[in-house]
Amino acid sequence: MSHFAQRLHAAIKHKQTPALVGLDPRLSQLPPQIVKSARTRHSDANLAAAAAFEEFCIRLIDVVTPLVPAVKPQSAFFEELGPAGSQALANVISHARSQKLIVILDAKRGDIGSTAEAYARGLIGGADPPSPWMADALTVNPYLGTDTLQPFVDVATERGGGIYVLVRTSNPGASAFQDRSEDGQKLFETVGSEVERLARETSAEANYGCVGAVVGATYPAELAALREAMPHTPLLVPGYGSQGGTAADVASSFDTSGLGAVINSSRAINFAFRAEQYATEFGEERWEEAAEAATRAMISDLADLTPASALQT
Amino acid sequence: MSHFAQRLHAAIKHKQTPALVGLDPRLSQLPPQIVKSARTRHSDANLAAAAAFEEFCIRLIDVVTPLVPAVKPQSAFFEELGPAGSQALANVISHARSQKLIVILDAKRGDIGSTAEAYARGLIGGADPPSPWMADALTVNPYLGTDTLQPFVDVATERGGGIYVLVRTSNPGASAFQDRSEDGQKLFETVGSEVERLARETSAEANYGCVGAVVGATYPAELAALREAMPHTPLLVPGYGSQGGTAADVASSFDTSGLGAVINSSRAINFAFRAEQYATEFGEERWEEAAEAATRAMISDLADLTPASALQT
Repeated sequence: MSHFAQRLHAAIKHKQTPALVGLDPRLSQLPPQIVKSARTRHSDANLAAAAAFEEFCIRLIDVVTPLVPAVKPQSAFFEELGPAGSQALANVISHARSQKLIVILDAKRGDIGSTAEAYARGLIGGADPPSPWMADALTVNPYLGTDTLQPFVDVATERGGGIYVLVRTSNPGASAFQDRSEDGQKLFETVGSEVERLARETSAEANYGCVGAVVGATYPAELAALREAMPHTPLLVPGYGSQGGTAADVASSFDTSGLGAVINSSRAINFAFRAEQYATEFGEERWEEAAEAATRAMISDLADLTPASALQT
Repeated sequence: MSHFAQRLHAAIKHKQTPALVGLDPRLSQLPPQIVKSARTRHSDANLAAAAAFEEFCIRLIDVVTPLVPAVKPQSAFFEELGPAGSQALANVISHARSQKLIVILDAKRGDIGSTAEAYARGLIGGADPPSPWMADALTVNPYLGTDTLQPFVDVATERGGGIYVLVRTSNPGASAFQDRSEDGQKLFETVGSEVERLARETSAEANYGCVGAVVGATYPAELAALREAMPHTPLLVPGYGSQGGTAADVASSFDTSGLGAVINSSRAINFAFRAEQYATEFGEERWEEAAEAATRAMISDLADLTPASALQT
């Protein structure tokens, strides 16, 4: 079983970009023709929405497969639809894997002991041993304590998968608890230090471990400091694009080779056809071309203004 | 739409106990005949396990319905089986609701803004407006910040549901981050104080709000202090039974009327037929009688040694 960080970095080098496309199907934002068509096939509202989510995400995956190394489905939107949404999520992940994309499932799970292990066994892994959801990596919440991260680390390591632990989130109120300071060290720094230890322990021959950290682009100073303090930790950086983070804000998240981080954009790509700069040119019918243009724009932006330029040879 | 804490307390008074039965289907622990029977009906391993989980939980619900006010399905075990498990979970919740039990879904969700709202809309609620999972209440992780709790609070309030925020968890390593101290206040106390504020704001005419707190029985001193500091906050207390918490340990979680807390036991009831004191008398075939005996023993224990005695008139 190959190592998560090695697989991720091979994919980043192959696609020559650290751009990560979030899959955030929001019913009110989807191309109307996809929703309309699903509703003609399903009278149940949740089944119709799930069918629309699945078609939208699979077509979006096909648009971005030639361009990016990885996708990040947001579990919440699928779960909002009940079991029909869960099935759609599994189908979407399966399709992304079949396209050789790295799949980071954004589900922010966390629990204790054998319960944490159940989440890890269900959500992380490939075809052998069988994992029903088959994500390459999973986002994990650290509040319960370092001992509760270990089952996720163990399962991920055993299966060639990874986890990304929430360290510094991108929301406006992230500081409420994460900035609480003891002996001059803030909570998110303490969590970061534990994550770096786990990353180092799982780095094997690689520079990076299979334990990563989520650090928001909306806090660039913290991002720069964490990158320096966590040299073995791959970063997942949300908050670029719709949430206000810029390429300059995320530049510090990379090492000099342009590795060590993936930068996520969800809404700005998913619903690019609704944005002013693409709406007129493409419109609803050509939403996939709008998504492609937005993805290419993000890739250029990162290549122009961050060490990700080193990936483009 | 009636208020969550009022509904919960009406159910507690009706059943005269604060005992909460966790639904923790673990494949290796289930009565073998249920697993065997499911495997004759389904060749796919996950479908078979999901069918076994559903049968086990539904029969267990029927055993405890006359005895307790509420059940707490653990989402992780269902998710471990993929979409088949998700469907089983929905069926189990639906059955519990049809038996008029309060359902607290233990899924420890947490995310930002509209993503948090998607979780809340999907997981919390009744038949109208339709919520596909239909939990009365949901456990929520606070790490991302107070602003990320608000969407859960808003949806819960609007639908007569509730949330239980993780404050002090029951695992051995809970202190790693939760005990970090700033200006003499530990993180879990700060989170508790925010939760109490939200509970007070949502208490309306009731003594308690629809925002509760998870506080482990394995830390009795912290439990007593939090009960005192959080007078409007209903508590969900895990860690009784298999994890080592005793009735004496949880006694401080109640108000003088025996209200304000539910005490959870999962494994000790689910798999009572495997425990020494019940194995000989009941055995595998009579696992339901073992579960009933274990539930009655817990109810007596709480009535004998805690203010829950006030419920038994």
